[in-house]
Amino acid sequence: MVKTISVTGHTSLDYLIWVDKIVDKNQSSPITRCETHFGGGAANVSAVMAKLGGSVRLVSPVGDDFVSSEYEKHLSDLGVDLSGVWRMGNEHLSKAFVITDRLLNQSTYFYWGAAGKLREMEPPKVDFVHMVTADCFFNAKMSKAAEFVSFDPGQDLVTYQKEPLQTILKNTNLLFTNRHEIKMVSDISGYSFEELLKMIDVIVVTYDKEGSVLYSGGNVICVGDDIRIGDCTEKIKTPIPCVLAESVDPTGAGDAYKAGFLVAFTKGYPLDVCCKIGAVTASFVVEKVGCQTNLPDWKTMTERYVLHFPASDLNL
Amino acid sequence: MVKTISVTGHTSLDYLIWVDKIVDKNQSSPITRCETHFGGGAANVSAVMAKLGGSVRLVSPVGDDFVSSEYEKHLSDLGVDLSGVWRMGNEHLSKAFVITDRLLNQSTYFYWGAAGKLREMEPPKVDFVHMVTADCFFNAKMSKAAEFVSFDPGQDLVTYQKEPLQTILKNTNLLFTNRHEIKMVSDISGYSFEELLKMIDVIVVTYDKEGSVLYSGGNVICVGDDIRIGDCTEKIKTPIPCVLAESVDPTGAGDAYKAGFLVAFTKGYPLDVCCKIGAVTASFVVEKVGCQTNLPDWKTMTERYVLHFPASDLNL
Repeated sequence: MVKTISVTGHTSLDYLIWVDKIVDKNQSSPITRCETHFGGGAANVSAVMAKLGGSVRLVSPVGDDFVSSEYEKHLSDLGVDLSGVWRMGNEHLSKAFVITDRLLNQSTYFYWGAAGKLREMEPPKVDFVHMVTADCFFNAKMSKAAEFVSFDPGQDLVTYQKEPLQTILKNTNLLFTNRHEIKMVSDISGYSFEELLKMIDVIVVTYDKEGSVLYSGGNVICVGDDIRIGDCTEKIKTPIPCVLAESVDPTGAGDAYKAGFLVAFTKGYPLDVCCKIGAVTASFVVEKVGCQTNLPDWKTMTERYVLHFPASDLNL
Repeated sequence: MVKTISVTGHTSLDYLIWVDKIVDKNQSSPITRCETHFGGGAANVSAVMAKLGGSVRLVSPVGDDFVSSEYEKHLSDLGVDLSGVWRMGNEHLSKAFVITDRLLNQSTYFYWGAAGKLREMEPPKVDFVHMVTADCFFNAKMSKAAEFVSFDPGQDLVTYQKEPLQTILKNTNLLFTNRHEIKMVSDISGYSFEELLKMIDVIVVTYDKEGSVLYSGGNVICVGDDIRIGDCTEKIKTPIPCVLAESVDPTGAGDAYKAGFLVAFTKGYPLDVCCKIGAVTASFVVEKVGCQTNLPDWKTMTERYVLHFPASDLNL
């Protein structure tokens, strides 16, 4: 029943910069703390999935600094299959510079680097893809090359165009968005939320500390290596509570949620349990700075799961 | 007549980030270009001096990434003496994040990293020090431990306190500032410019593209290994023109000017020629992005010198 999920999108270095104040033009401010972390949506999801014991292949363009920064070693040690990584000479990893002031305001600058080449890449044929934000044209091609499509439009959604987004949505089986993105998906694609509900098997909308909402009719069906969602005529709305944690840094919570969901999904858990496992997984990642710093293995995740949800959920 | 100059201050990694726009709080912007360069005032001056054939020793705290970033190899290849470098375990190099928008506005964030330990360091006894900005308390101690003191208060001047600055100025033989810093030096120290002129043998004030002004009475005197400035009762003001170049990036021009000046100074050139050699050296560095990217050797510098100034200047 183990199914390999190919995860596409960014592999980035995150520069987390804490400052006295976010300054205006032609001003400067001292940095009080400065850390570099492994990041990028696709790599974050892959790392969390691998640590949970999921079978995951990263499909992402990287630059020379993938090796020199020891990012390659980090993912390889976690068990992520790197055979789908495109290694670009004379390119650099994408980078995010996140500047946070004392009041936790943030300014973010993002550099695409090697990920800027995604648009030109030919997507591999895969059984199951999870597409984490990034280029809409690549994702449109990718969504056609995969048998089962999970999609997280994420922060690059602001760059999406109507036609490729429509193509992606028509091929999407699982859609993950936050409360803001779901509106933007409708605005850009021209599809109402009701139309999206009809087109897409499962939609999960996250609401930060207010938890998440699962819209689904069918349930997970696993037959041998095949995994799909049962047919349904109408979607049911199921609220899933957030698992509160000692949050130090919310970055990466969304990626961890999807990673937990997807590993549970490939194990054949009911969709609401997949969401809860996602919520539990996310609660670990927010406890430390960095998106790949505090990753639970499956056992550690289940130990926290049973503190918040019925233990019987986990018996398949 | 070759005298080793110890150069103290920052050894940094510069992250040069070009963006569509410098954003306000809780906004983000894409990065159009992103480069990492070797920087930090002390290391910049050392690199330029070494390339010009000067004898230079870097005295600066560095972190683990001094080696992993290949900064060590870069300086060592140039011929900089690294025996004075303090290697701090569990620390990182200082870092500058310079964000530049399409209209060339800049926001700068500076992380002290290992350089934050300067204040605790015991300065070595040296013949000739060039102190490039950084911590005022360390520089006050350093100025007492050196026989000959050259001082560039630079961007950290905003953090300087009256008493250590007074100590530094009392021990300074050569003072380099720009038009803004000379006012700030007076404001913080309480010494008028006239008092500074009486206290300090040579003051050089730079005015960007309008050139620089040398205030000096005596001249360079070299006797064996000893080098000093001749006594004088009154300072003469000598304007030095800027050497215009195809400027791509002005960062590092000031450090290059001082490096050119200092190498010429140790060779015993008259002070006005030292300034001109500084101006010629700076004209190379601004032609490429990065403070240590486009460094002339002595011969290359002299070839450009004679296009702007009398060749006879260079005959000692």
